[in-house]
Amino acid sequence: MKVYYQLKTFSIRLSFSPNMLVAEQTSPQVNEIPDVKAVDVVAPSWKLVAARRQAEINNAIPTEYLVPLVQLGGLENRIGLPEASGILTHRELEITARSATGLLRFLHNGTYTAVEVTTAFCKRAAIAHQAVNCLALVMFQQALADAAELDQYMQTHHRPKGPLHGLPISVKEHIELAGTPATAGLISLADSVSSQDAMIVRVLREAGAVFHVKTTNPQTLLALETESNIYGITVNPYNINLSSGGSSGGEAALIAMRGSLLGIGTDMGGSIRAPSAFNGVFGLKPSVGRLPHGGLEGLHSGMENVIGCCGPIATCVEDMRLFCQVILASEPWRQEPEMIEKPWNPIPLPTNLKIGVMWHDGVAQPQPPVTRCLRETVLAIQQAGHTVVYWDPKDHPALTKSMDRAFFIDAGKEYWDVIKQGEEPAVPVMQWILTERNNSPPLTVVETWKLNSERKLLQNSHAAQWDELDLDAIICPVHFSNAPAIHEAQYAGYTNAFNRLDYTAAVFPVGKVEPTDTWENFPRAIEQSLGKDDDFSFKTYTGPDKYRHSPVSLQIVTRRLQEEKNLAIIEKVIQAVELKKQLLDHGLLLHSNDI
Amino acid sequence: MKVYYQLKTFSIRLSFSPNMLVAEQTSPQVNEIPDVKAVDVVAPSWKLVAARRQAEINNAIPTEYLVPLVQLGGLENRIGLPEASGILTHRELEITARSATGLLRFLHNGTYTAVEVTTAFCKRAAIAHQAVNCLALVMFQQALADAAELDQYMQTHHRPKGPLHGLPISVKEHIELAGTPATAGLISLADSVSSQDAMIVRVLREAGAVFHVKTTNPQTLLALETESNIYGITVNPYNINLSSGGSSGGEAALIAMRGSLLGIGTDMGGSIRAPSAFNGVFGLKPSVGRLPHGGLEGLHSGMENVIGCCGPIATCVEDMRLFCQVILASEPWRQEPEMIEKPWNPIPLPTNLKIGVMWHDGVAQPQPPVTRCLRETVLAIQQAGHTVVYWDPKDHPALTKSMDRAFFIDAGKEYWDVIKQGEEPAVPVMQWILTERNNSPPLTVVETWKLNSERKLLQNSHAAQWDELDLDAIICPVHFSNAPAIHEAQYAGYTNAFNRLDYTAAVFPVGKVEPTDTWENFPRAIEQSLGKDDDFSFKTYTGPDKYRHSPVSLQIVTRRLQEEKNLAIIEKVIQAVELKKQLLDHGLLLHSNDI
Repeated sequence: MKVYYQLKTFSIRLSFSPNMLVAEQTSPQVNEIPDVKAVDVVAPSWKLVAARRQAEINNAIPTEYLVPLVQLGGLENRIGLPEASGILTHRELEITARSATGLLRFLHNGTYTAVEVTTAFCKRAAIAHQAVNCLALVMFQQALADAAELDQYMQTHHRPKGPLHGLPISVKEHIELAGTPATAGLISLADSVSSQDAMIVRVLREAGAVFHVKTTNPQTLLALETESNIYGITVNPYNINLSSGGSSGGEAALIAMRGSLLGIGTDMGGSIRAPSAFNGVFGLKPSVGRLPHGGLEGLHSGMENVIGCCGPIATCVEDMRLFCQVILASEPWRQEPEMIEKPWNPIPLPTNLKIGVMWHDGVAQPQPPVTRCLRETVLAIQQAGHTVVYWDPKDHPALTKSMDRAFFIDAGKEYWDVIKQGEEPAVPVMQWILTERNNSPPLTVVETWKLNSERKLLQNSHAAQWDELDLDAIICPVHFSNAPAIHEAQYAGYTNAFNRLDYTAAVFPVGKVEPTDTWENFPRAIEQSLGKDDDFSFKTYTGPDKYRHSPVSLQIVTRRLQEEKNLAIIEKVIQAVELKKQLLDHGLLLHSNDI
Repeated sequence: MKVYYQLKTFSIRLSFSPNMLVAEQTSPQVNEIPDVKAVDVVAPSWKLVAARRQAEINNAIPTEYLVPLVQLGGLENRIGLPEASGILTHRELEITARSATGLLRFLHNGTYTAVEVTTAFCKRAAIAHQAVNCLALVMFQQALADAAELDQYMQTHHRPKGPLHGLPISVKEHIELAGTPATAGLISLADSVSSQDAMIVRVLREAGAVFHVKTTNPQTLLALETESNIYGITVNPYNINLSSGGSSGGEAALIAMRGSLLGIGTDMGGSIRAPSAFNGVFGLKPSVGRLPHGGLEGLHSGMENVIGCCGPIATCVEDMRLFCQVILASEPWRQEPEMIEKPWNPIPLPTNLKIGVMWHDGVAQPQPPVTRCLRETVLAIQQAGHTVVYWDPKDHPALTKSMDRAFFIDAGKEYWDVIKQGEEPAVPVMQWILTERNNSPPLTVVETWKLNSERKLLQNSHAAQWDELDLDAIICPVHFSNAPAIHEAQYAGYTNAFNRLDYTAAVFPVGKVEPTDTWENFPRAIEQSLGKDDDFSFKTYTGPDKYRHSPVSLQIVTRRLQEEKNLAIIEKVIQAVELKKQLLDHGLLLHSNDI
């Protein structure tokens, strides 16, 4: 079954097959209103809903932002499409190439107007969407009106409205934004329009941010890849055969393509970190209570055995810091009392860091690109004079298992309920999660207490190990692979164990898949199988070609509520990696795989 | 049924009837080992257990610390007994009259030895126990040995071992202390000896504290008064017809009698604040995660819908601050990762405070002594130049109702289970709580989530009201009465609503019951009944005589994790009250009841 829908200028048929985005022009006719008749008459109701919602998105993209289909067809690596498309002016490309922090300086001093900055990002977001299907809502008109108001404010008051004056910020779909739908990827919530802004949106808006798009998230938000019946699948801009990750997949793919420099993601088990890593951008999962979390659409409302959090996705560390600083400067805990009153307060790092390296998590060993990048980075850290010690992942398997259990306290009942309510099928990854991953019975109230107690024991054991080693941070993979192929993003243990601990964790890109990334060159630490997830990691990596162009990222973990420290350590690690690259370029160091 | 047990020097029969402590010498014979045969042969097994545990406590009190029975019999107000007994030397009375902070200066500079300080508090704690039955464990020998070691340390190193060098600290019974029983007032746990120190005990021990006693808590810890079959009832030192409160009743009564200057209490719904208030001492309930909480015996392990916390009970604000400072300086979050990494960091107060006054909580209006003291204190605060505004308790009834529901998620099943396991009856207050107070069915897992969501809405609503008024604190009653009569301590809404909000709350004494405290002079704000609890408050206050000698305390509430600010505000309020007293003494002000 194919779904037909209408763009303003021509009908196209977009069908996202598991490993290929197919776009084909079907008619040159103009239709302002989605032509529901074009949808197969025997389509179930959810297809009508999806077609309508997708048409709304696409119809909101101005004609002049449309990429000629000839540019898209068959293009595997689309990261350069915004530049190649010819849609952005030179000045707009310059604007979108900056960091948010850098851009704001030019917005504040009047070099750029909010309208021209917003225009540039609207164009770029539109291109990103055509490339990878990452938008859940297009708000260009409203964003440009808001930007014009900000320009007016600047003209009148000769000062910016706030620290984020005129900066377009993208918003993950389930985060409430007044007057727009928040569906958590569910057909049953397709028309659930938010009556007010989420707390984090409100704070950013008051600081002068402009909201131009909402970005896709998967059906129920649970998955590590971004597919829903309502929005389709979001693919990876570096290689459309690969996943954009999830659940903040739309956000991370958009930011990788610089359709936004700063986005609001959410993370309950890896949903900021996995997609950020897969798309080669930066993402921070703070501890619960550090950033505002009120006003999100989602399941299991009130379930506190696992709590998610909001965090930034960005193109650099500096912008993640800006995001946190601006939000905390507004004292959001006054309105959201579940937050911890902890202003942003960077503390100088020790000159010599002590970092534990977790080569694998004891459940699923990493694939060659990840192992190589981790090795290279550890060497760079050591060469920069820091200490790296071995981290034994002894509690990790139990932590991630305990997390899986907490996600399925009701044995997936509410997931099934909301899917059925929309009369839609489970998307493939949800089908797998709800049948193969989870097959435990529901827990009783007393059993949930036991689960909490077990978590506490694991937290204490992990903390004792950390304290004994006197670590500043752990460095480890984000996932056993870089971006997995579509429908191969399953295991979330590298990220969700740190949600279980409520530790601060952030990801950053360190390299790309290389032709030399073979199992022969980078074999597993433990030859024998560690179980199903380990086998899956081994079996799915059939060689570097499958993952070509794909960025490789790593994760830095610091203790609870150490967001400032985490970001500062990532900067140190990046410096070390840069230094090593320079030494290598000058022939002063051996490549790690020569050692 | 009377329980007979043995002291080293003579057998006495102690039976705590609801409103009278009866002590009577029955035999002059010496028995080193409790004579179980002395117990009625048809006694159920729990009585044997209780007799044995009580005999252990009493046998550990040296003969020379025993108060002649003639001094005790019929003595209603026992607060002065330590001074009157003649058991302490002048120097020992001087030692025990100081604040902990003051005393430590003399311990650090060698004026006092740890042994003489410990001796003084052992004596005084022994007297307190004979007066009000507040001890659950006597560890004088171990404490004196520990003190001797500290003196040795000082002699060798010419410096104190830590900031609390030589300070005796009392420990609430259910807080684990290696090698001692922690029973939560339950017969079934009578011989549950802790294998290690609770985290908070470990930190205080490492800071140089000496542990001389554990103090009584009620059966299951749930009650607002301290009665258990294992330890009997702990009465109020100011008036033994009144309750010492609960669940930290032993701790608060002991500290009122200066058998300790600093104690560790725990508070899940008022268990630090109610007894501190009833006994005229200071008590702080921090927010969850501010102070260590690991290593406590108790029920509903892993239940996180309501979480308790440890906090100090003391004779002054300064000592509560010392307690927090010393603990947080040890960075306990490194070992207890559920704690919030937030060092003690006092921030200067605004010169003019803005305080909301909650005259009543909308459920049970306060009795005359409380109303009068609140009025007088509010006047004093205003006269000192601060702003006091009206706090509408609109969310309070729902908050306390929601708390009651959270306490009984399993409809009291675990309470009944552990009571039955010990083959003991429920004590009167537990019988009432488990039958009359709680009569709701158990909640399902999904219903507990709904309860959490409702709590969050209440928290947000309360925070919005607070933020709109831009308050620094709320001042309000701790309970509708000062110390209630025994078996009349029921309603915990004035305290547990602030646990529901996880706000910081502390109590401090401001006055005493006065002969003029009548309903005529201090009528209720709302004439018509607010319901059962309101009726109970009205009906039980039959006049000031019933509550004679009883201290009256108030509560200061600050936002979450604002422990530093809370204590600083209490100091300001006390200064204001003192200033007002001086002005009154000089005839420069009118008495509030003249206005």
